[in-house]
Parts: sequence; structure tokens; C-alpha cells
Amino acid sequence: MSEVHQLTATQIRDLITTNKLTVEEYAHSLLTHIQARDPIIKARVHLNAAQVLTQARHLDQIPPAKRGPLHGVAIGIKDVILTKDMPTKYASAIHTNAPASTTDAAIVTTLRAAGALIVGKTATTEFAATHEGGPCTNPHNPLHTPGGSSSGSAAAVADFQVPVAVGTQTGGSIVRPAGFCGVWGFKPTWSAISREGISHVSITCDTAGFFARSVDDLELLADVFNLTDDEPVPRSPYSVSGARIAFAKTHVWPKAGPGLVVAWERAKDLLVAQGAQIEEIELPGEFENLREWHGVILKGEGRAEFRGQYLLSKDKLSRGIVDTVESKATVSQKALLESYDGAARLRPMWDSIASRYDAVIVPSTVDEAQRGLEYTGDSSFCSMWTLLHVPALHVPGLFGEGGLPVGLTVVGGRHVLYVGRGIGGVLQVA
Amino acid sequence: MSEVHQLTATQIRDLITTNKLTVEEYAHSLLTHIQARDPIIKARVHLNAAQVLTQARHLDQIPPAKRGPLHGVAIGIKDVILTKDMPTKYASAIHTNAPASTTDAAIVTTLRAAGALIVGKTATTEFAATHEGGPCTNPHNPLHTPGGSSSGSAAAVADFQVPVAVGTQTGGSIVRPAGFCGVWGFKPTWSAISREGISHVSITCDTAGFFARSVDDLELLADVFNLTDDEPVPRSPYSVSGARIAFAKTHVWPKAGPGLVVAWERAKDLLVAQGAQIEEIELPGEFENLREWHGVILKGEGRAEFRGQYLLSKDKLSRGIVDTVESKATVSQKALLESYDGAARLRPMWDSIASRYDAVIVPSTVDEAQRGLEYTGDSSFCSMWTLLHVPALHVPGLFGEGGLPVGLTVVGGRHVLYVGRGIGGVLQVA
Repeated sequence: MSEVHQLTATQIRDLITTNKLTVEEYAHSLLTHIQARDPIIKARVHLNAAQVLTQARHLDQIPPAKRGPLHGVAIGIKDVILTKDMPTKYASAIHTNAPASTTDAAIVTTLRAAGALIVGKTATTEFAATHEGGPCTNPHNPLHTPGGSSSGSAAAVADFQVPVAVGTQTGGSIVRPAGFCGVWGFKPTWSAISREGISHVSITCDTAGFFARSVDDLELLADVFNLTDDEPVPRSPYSVSGARIAFAKTHVWPKAGPGLVVAWERAKDLLVAQGAQIEEIELPGEFENLREWHGVILKGEGRAEFRGQYLLSKDKLSRGIVDTVESKATVSQKALLESYDGAARLRPMWDSIASRYDAVIVPSTVDEAQRGLEYTGDSSFCSMWTLLHVPALHVPGLFGEGGLPVGLTVVGGRHVLYVGRGIGGVLQVA
Repeated sequence: MSEVHQLTATQIRDLITTNKLTVEEYAHSLLTHIQARDPIIKARVHLNAAQVLTQARHLDQIPPAKRGPLHGVAIGIKDVILTKDMPTKYASAIHTNAPASTTDAAIVTTLRAAGALIVGKTATTEFAATHEGGPCTNPHNPLHTPGGSSSGSAAAVADFQVPVAVGTQTGGSIVRPAGFCGVWGFKPTWSAISREGISHVSITCDTAGFFARSVDDLELLADVFNLTDDEPVPRSPYSVSGARIAFAKTHVWPKAGPGLVVAWERAKDLLVAQGAQIEEIELPGEFENLREWHGVILKGEGRAEFRGQYLLSKDKLSRGIVDTVESKATVSQKALLESYDGAARLRPMWDSIASRYDAVIVPSTVDEAQRGLEYTGDSSFCSMWTLLHVPALHVPGLFGEGGLPVGLTVVGGRHVLYVGRGIGGVLQVA
């Protein structure tokens, strides 16, 4: 058996359910590993070991009949999400001395009600709104960025510090760090998980989601949050044999680096070898506007979101956020409404395209994680799917020229976890 | 001169700026009035007089050059909005013993940064998500409902307890209580004011806004929140003479009570007498779907928003909220997406209709406020405008058969405050 800290959430839950492991023993295993590793990875901005152990002992005392579906499962929480026993600092100079909140964000309430063991707050970029990284590092190579803004959640999962973690995505802040760190990243449909108590960047784009090392764990979380499609998932395991799978390079493809180009062809070969019917598709021309509309919406909404912080402490905000608040001169209300209307027009168009395939695969990142921690990377392959509000599942499994992970994204349509599992199984034989 | 507590925010600001009044003197005047009146009105769920006076003295010590545009202006905050010196209880049995929060909602941060004097938390319905009223009463007749869910904010303004107050609208929760209490109510464009730190009911519909007894005060607040249109407002006072004003009864009109029917005709007569060109218009047939789509979206989003509270303390939630969380069987994902897409399709269609007129006037409420506090009233005249994301300004001035207020709503279109001022000036001569 692997060491306890290396197990997935589903495995841990089974061990605890069958009394082969206590939550306290599990917590000790994680904390020992974290203590050894986090000085290098720096995935955590807050961790109170004594508090985690108290929480674990409390969970152990709950009688079996009253235990939730996540009983004892350790989870990290991105530090832009309110937690009532830990501070929330948003990587912002404004909140350096924040006390523990008096309230949990709605997503944390649900996790606690399901029995999860909350293990610390994970590193983010400033308000999850910038691409300025550090100090969190990539577990595959600490000289490389883990991506952002959900840097710490992706790195903590990749580094076996927790099996699952919560992140948020406004552009590519779940898919990109999942890609760079080589773990599964799941951005559900917009509005499917409450964002109450999570800092706002853009209400049209902000989406809460999860990182895991196993698609089983994402299904476990999806059940807790009741993320079901209308049609029940077929019971038999999904096989890519005979499946119709589209590959869409999108208008962003000219940015593709060598790692992505190789992974793209390799994924097609692997899927074809397993009997999948592969088709490269081009998105309609209007989809090219999504990148610009995304940028306009982030300015148009962000200037409202950050106005209070700006009036209070402009000097403690980074230049990008100040520019957003001051964007009335450059981004008009008319442009904002046109961006809303344009994206809304494409949503049903996309649903119609996606419905013709079992899955549509798109790039996650421009390439493997670049060297250096200053810049968390380019989100332009992700932001269009965020704005379209569709579920997006980053599937790990392939690697770039530098040996760092490069994965691909399955975008919904239906049953994105179910189909993604099958695709992941194929890619990960590589 | 009126008593100090009766003055508008703009008048108060001018008195304080010219050193004719201190914030502390102003606070004393309000607190004395509140103490006398609130046992009847019950607009407040939290008020710490000593804390208000401390805040006032602190504001008085700020040197004139550093004072904000709302310096000393008293404002009430709906009790679904986080405040770092007062508890937030959401009128929920779950939060009866809530402590003061450690954070302010973004809207409160902006108000504080602008120098506002926060005077207590105002009554709401449970999570601003139900129509179950009480104990807050209507200042025009305490046996009648003040409307909801922003009951306390509307009643406090109408009762001269504060000149302005913050509310939220998901269906008709600003316009309806403004209508029933006979004050101005302003729901800005969706996304124009941050809702971070405000409880969620439906992210597609939730909108923060304001109550006031004067359109000047709404303009003052609009400036603080930078709610500007692309085109600057013309400088000269707006005159309805020669203005093209549409009256749209909407598909909800069969619900109209006698008070609304009389107000509707009276408003037209008054505007025509001042030289306005009045036209009754019919909305395209598809607009009738907005009511149903609104209901689907409130269920489809509400089930995500309330999931944590439901898992944690289902027995402390009212039946309506429990039904919302359990709505997967009755409201499909497909219906939710169709409602999103349908509303999105009508938004530019509405903009095109509105652009042909100076203003479009629509009903605010079915009739004047009904007797009894149990039910806060019907929001079906309002919810379509909330879902369309357009600015809506409730203009007071007319009265129903029972002598209680009945107003009308000006829906944007551009410059809704500017045009609304002119219309209000005409209605209020009645």
C-alpha cells in the first residue's frame, strides 16, 4: 500500500469507513508530509496543525450513522474563500493582518457539512485577479511556476499534501495550474456551486471548482454538490472505443508551444489506437471574439468589484487592479453590454456543436510550465470556456519537452467527468 | 427649517460641510427620532447607539480636506450584507446568534470610504429570499406591510430614520417596498455595484441598490459608485415638455388593482398636461416568458446557493427555501439553460425598444400595500426588469384608494435618474 498521504480521497474515505484508519491518524500523516515538503512547495499560506488535529478528533467522534460522504477527507481551500477558523488574506497587502472570519463561504459550509477535514488555506495571486506569482512553486520542479491563480491548491494536490482542493477560475485559474502541476482540474458549469463568501473578480466569469489526483474524487465532490446532468450517467464504464471525439484547436492555437503541439498529436494517436473516431473541428468565426469580450467583462465588472478597496487603499493594490478600477475611460458601458450579448449568443451555439460529439478536447495551456515564479502563465486557451459557462475538465497524463506535465481539457457537453475518465485512462498509459 | 432628521442626505452633507452641523449632532437627532418611532416601525434588527455616536465623533475629527462625498450621511444597511462592526442575521434561525463579522461587504467598504455614517442593520425577509413579512411595518400605516424583502431599508427611509438605505433586489425587493412606503427606490444595472459580502439568492438576478426620499440623494450615491452612462448627462434640468414617454403595462397587467389603474391614468394625464408625448406600447410576445424564466432561474441557482445551509440545518430553513434546494426533480438543467438563453436574447431587444423613448414607465406594484404583515406582496411587475438587468427607478408621488402610496417605475434606457427626476417632479405635484 502507498503511504497514507498518497491516497486519493475515495481511498481514504473507504479506509476510514471500514475502521482501518482514524481521521486523526490520517491528519498526522498529512501534517508530517506537509512539514517536510511545504518549505519547498509553499502551497500553503495558513496552516494550524493543532487546529487540524482537533478537527480530526472531532470527526472521529461522530458516530458512523451520522458521518457525511466526505467524512475525514482532507481538502485545501484557496485563500480567497472565507473560513471561520482561519484568516483569509487574498494575497493582498490590504489584508495582511486579517483575523479568522466569523463566517464560512457557502462552499466551505457544504464541505464541512459533508464531513471534510479542512487543511489550511492555499496560495493565490492577489485577489485571484493577477498573473503575478510567487512564492508557491511547481512540485515537478520548484524553479517553475505552478500556474495561477489557484497556485497553492494545484500544487498541494500534486505534492500529495491533500487529495483534493478548492480553487476558482475567472480566466484559466483552475485549468492552467492543474495543467502545470499535472493533476485533474474541474471547473463546473457557472452557477452550479455557490460563490457566496468567495472574493469577486467578475461575476460573469468567476467559477468555483476542484483539483484532484483522481477522477473518482471529482465525482465524489460532484455528488456532494449535487452536480448532476438531466440524463443519468450510463452505468457501464465509458470506453473511448467507437466514441466520437472532436479536437478543437481554437483561434488561440497560434500561441501553441512545442509541448502542446506534441501532446495534441500524441493524444489523437492514443485515442485512435483505442478505437475512437477523431475529428478536428474549427469553431465558427464569431468564437474568436470571446477573448476580447472576456477582457472587456473583466474590466467592466472588476471596476465595480474593486471600487471599495480602491477608495480605501489604492496604494496597496497592484497596478493591474488600479487600471481595472479606472477603466471607465477605456471600456465603455456599450462595449460591456455588447460583450455580454455576444457571449450569450454563442452559448447555445456551442451547446449545439458539443452535442454532436461524446467530447470536445481543447488545449489547456500554451505549453508546459515556464521557468520562473514571477508570471503564472497565459490563460487564453481557457478564458473562452469560462465565459461560455460550460464545464471544463483538465485531464492530465502527457508531458512536454522539459519533462513537465502538459494535459488537455475536455469541455462540456454532458457528463464531462464520465467521459473525461475514459479519456484520462487512455492518455495516462502514455 | 425642517428638523434635522427630516433632511435629505444632500442637505445634511451641505450643513456639515459648511460647519452648521456636526455629525455627532446629526446622529443624536436621528437616534432620538429612531428611539421614538422604531418600536412601531420595527425597521431595525440591530442598532448600537453608542457605536453610532463613536463613529460620528470619529467622522467629525476628519479634517475637511480628507472628507469623502458622503461625509456624515447616515445610511441603513439591509441585514443580508456583511458589516464588520455589527452582526448579520439574514432573518434566519440559523444565524440568530451571529457575531459581528470581521469583514465588510464591498458596498459597505465603499460607503465607509466615502465617509458614510452606518446606522444599524435593517429588517429583511429570510435570506432576502421569501415573501414572509413581519415584524417591520409600513410607516404610512403600521397595520400594512412595508413590502419586502428590503422591508426595513424602505421603512427606515420613509420614516425619516435615515435619509438613504441599502437594499437588494432579486425579484422586486427594492421597487416593491419603495412603492409601498412611498420613497424613491433605485435598482442599478446588474453588475454595476459589487455584491461581494451580500447573501446570494440568484447570481443572475441579485442586484444591490438604494432607497432615498430625494433623487438628489440617489445621484449622490450613483456618483460614489461611479454609475455613469457613456454619454454625459445633459446639464440643463430635464423637462418632460416634448419628451417621448412610453407606458408599458406589460403582460402582468391583468393583476393590476384599482390603485394602480387610477395611478396609471393619473400619471399619463399629469405628464400630458406638462407637454409630454405619451404612447402606450405593447412588449413583444416573448417578454411574457420572462416571469417563468425568472422562476426557473431562482430555483436553478438557489439550489446551489442554499445547499450548504440545507445540509447543515435544513430544519431551520423555511419551506420555500427547502423546496428550492430540492428542485432538481422539477427544474431541469435544460430548463435553466433555456431560461438563461431566453433572457439573454431579450436584453438587446429591450435596449432597442427603450432607445426610442426618453423613458419607459411600467407598474411597480399590483396596488397599494395590503393590510397585514404576513405577506410582503407580489413582485411580478418587477422581476422581468431584474432579469433583464436594466436600471429601474421607482418614482413615488401618487396614492391609492386607501391613501397609501402607489408609484411607478422608470426603466432604463439611459440616464434613468436624470429622466426620473423630471417625471417625479410632475407626479409629485399631485
